Amino acid sequence: MKEFTTKDKYNRVLKERAALPEGFQTAVQSFDFYPEERATDEPMRMNLTLIELDEPTDVFAGVFTRNAFPGYPVIIGRDLLGEDKISGILINNRISNVRCHGGKETALNITGELQELRKKDHPYLPSSTGIIGWKLPEKEMIGNLAPLSDKLKRTDFFEAAESIMTTDAFPKVRSADLDGGRICAIAKGAGMIEPDMATMLVFILTDIKIDRGELRKLFPEIINSTFNRISIDSDQSTSDTAIIFSSGRKECSSIDDFKKALYSVCSSLAEDIVRNGEGTSHLIRVTVSEAESVEEATGLGKALINSPLTKTAIFGNDPNVGRFIQAMGDHLGEKGVYINPDNIQISIGDQIVYEGGFFSLDEEKEKKLSNYMKDCSFVNSEGFPPHERSVDLNIKLGRGICSSQVLGSDLTYEYVRENADYRT
Amino acid sequence: MKEFTTKDKYNRVLKERAALPEGFQTAVQSFDFYPEERATDEPMRMNLTLIELDEPTDVFAGVFTRNAFPGYPVIIGRDLLGEDKISGILINNRISNVRCHGGKETALNITGELQELRKKDHPYLPSSTGIIGWKLPEKEMIGNLAPLSDKLKRTDFFEAAESIMTTDAFPKVRSADLDGGRICAIAKGAGMIEPDMATMLVFILTDIKIDRGELRKLFPEIINSTFNRISIDSDQSTSDTAIIFSSGRKECSSIDDFKKALYSVCSSLAEDIVRNGEGTSHLIRVTVSEAESVEEATGLGKALINSPLTKTAIFGNDPNVGRFIQAMGDHLGEKGVYINPDNIQISIGDQIVYEGGFFSLDEEKEKKLSNYMKDCSFVNSEGFPPHERSVDLNIKLGRGICSSQVLGSDLTYEYVRENADYRT
Repeated sequence: MKEFTTKDKYNRVLKERAALPEGFQTAVQSFDFYPEERATDEPMRMNLTLIELDEPTDVFAGVFTRNAFPGYPVIIGRDLLGEDKISGILINNRISNVRCHGGKETALNITGELQELRKKDHPYLPSSTGIIGWKLPEKEMIGNLAPLSDKLKRTDFFEAAESIMTTDAFPKVRSADLDGGRICAIAKGAGMIEPDMATMLVFILTDIKIDRGELRKLFPEIINSTFNRISIDSDQSTSDTAIIFSSGRKECSSIDDFKKALYSVCSSLAEDIVRNGEGTSHLIRVTVSEAESVEEATGLGKALINSPLTKTAIFGNDPNVGRFIQAMGDHLGEKGVYINPDNIQISIGDQIVYEGGFFSLDEEKEKKLSNYMKDCSFVNSEGFPPHERSVDLNIKLGRGICSSQVLGSDLTYEYVRENADYRT
Repeated sequence: MKEFTTKDKYNRVLKERAALPEGFQTAVQSFDFYPEERATDEPMRMNLTLIELDEPTDVFAGVFTRNAFPGYPVIIGRDLLGEDKISGILINNRISNVRCHGGKETALNITGELQELRKKDHPYLPSSTGIIGWKLPEKEMIGNLAPLSDKLKRTDFFEAAESIMTTDAFPKVRSADLDGGRICAIAKGAGMIEPDMATMLVFILTDIKIDRGELRKLFPEIINSTFNRISIDSDQSTSDTAIIFSSGRKECSSIDDFKKALYSVCSSLAEDIVRNGEGTSHLIRVTVSEAESVEEATGLGKALINSPLTKTAIFGNDPNVGRFIQAMGDHLGEKGVYINPDNIQISIGDQIVYEGGFFSLDEEKEKKLSNYMKDCSFVNSEGFPPHERSVDLNIKLGRGICSSQVLGSDLTYEYVRENADYRT
């Protein structure tokens, strides 16, 4: 369990994690622009981030939002999954390119110009995050492709992790070493907590050689049990995207080991995203076990971490098990599933709080649990997470052998402030 | 559209609505008690409320929470629906009698004592609302049945509407006249916004004569299209209860007219419950039309009013249509339903904000909409609702002839404060 006392210390750890796998270069470039949607003299600043493979690769995979009204980069990305090879990805922050006139053409124009500039036979993926409904500043973006291209280098992934941020409190980098090669991943996003600047973006690079078909089979499974098991506020963005590229430079000795390493990178990066929410003061880890199916366990876990009453209780350091029972009962009632409440056991941390059909709480235990929750809170998330602790809820259903873990955040004043005070 | 300038004016309107139908008496009685769960010198105050029919009736119906872990009064109430006749109902606030040792026996003992005291051949329903997990003060409750019984009178329902409140900001009464008789209803609850004192309770009295089977057919339908279409925070309580009794004193000339009158009473009372939330600063009315089915329309409406991002935007008087699209797309994506975004039209108040696949907003329109939202906000809900206005979102899906209306509340600092600052 890591503790971070200063931002410098946090960033030092991140830079250690951020060494690029072989066969990749990255670059970032910032510029000012005047959005046409606002009659203002104040320019906005946009960061471009380029990830490029030394040689276009056929080993890439992508998982996109299930939102029925996705942004244009998601629509284009889904098409490009069918390509033989891909040259890399161009990411911009500030504007998400969703539901604006000509958004698809603009994205294709920009990546087309990049492909020509970089003299590649294969396309680049576009990726955008930021305000919904506004147009990308196409001219300015194209004008900045040459200086961006000039900056490509093969040092580390840290700068890119900072460059893709919107309202993220801190950059997020995770990595794992394997077979002399490595997996290195960055993420942007604090769930949907940002005002209109929704979107979780995850970019994973590896030099481990793996079959394209194999990667496309295992990647969605891993996303499903990591990034799809976190929830800040139950809202799924129009642009959520996770992309993985392999440069194929290092032989893979065991696909199982690769899978394990990728799972560990994704699951710790998923935690970072929840921890990162500026509105988040507690990371909540719900483990539901003894369920009849993984789906049942995941459904109950998500019902808990999406319940406003559970979330506000944990914000208030209140071991309010009545609300957990209520949220679970609501979910089960809606699903029409009967689970005997006498067989359920609920713990917070290492303390049992419900067992045999009844609450098991007294004033002393409540005080202990409230202090446990206080210890888990993020007193400082100004530019770095102070620690990696979480409030652990363990639910045993007493009716099967399946289990699932989901991660969520509490519901705070800061969440409401950020999301209500945006434009008015 | 009513405006209420003072609490007195609001209560005067309520008292006019609260005349009892024939054949009923009500009484309230308060007392202090010391809950065994807390070692404290401060007593708590409990209100008992009794609703009694002059003659036990066979015409009664009840709809209870779908929550899989219901409270004991709900478990008992479901049983008692099978009785030939019922004498009335005894309601207490403060403790909800959920998941505590011996809770079922306690509830039956108390209503049993009441039945004996009132010399009735038929039982009373129990109903409780308040803290989850604590025990009812059985001895004190039984000791207060005689003074409660002495206070029975046939004046009005207003006192009872006040007596069943927990953290409700104001009492709620609605009524309708029909065939020389009337329907009069009271409700308690601010959704699940109260810390542990969950529960919506609705009690409806009528002297209109109607067949038991007919009532039990139409009552769940009406509940489903009124109280089941409101959501404060998507959490369903362990004790939600709606009960209707008929004394059968007045002939019913048209069952359709009775149904319409009952719908109107329930739907306005449902609005009052949403408006009542202490954390609520806007009532949101979402109308989804041109849907393929009522379920589709209701599902989309609920997705909108349960989306934290939609709720915080409206709290902030922000006409943030990007979030509405995101919430709808999230719901449809999860359901696997494809709706062409080009055919959708979204309006806020009388302004179209999305049409033909694109946002339709400029700075002037946004300003106008923000002012519209400000006019709808509750600047004062200290003991009375200042007005009956709502923020109206109209969604046309362009694919069918079905529609549905749902009501919700915004997400505010006050909501977080009330639910986080409860015990610690």
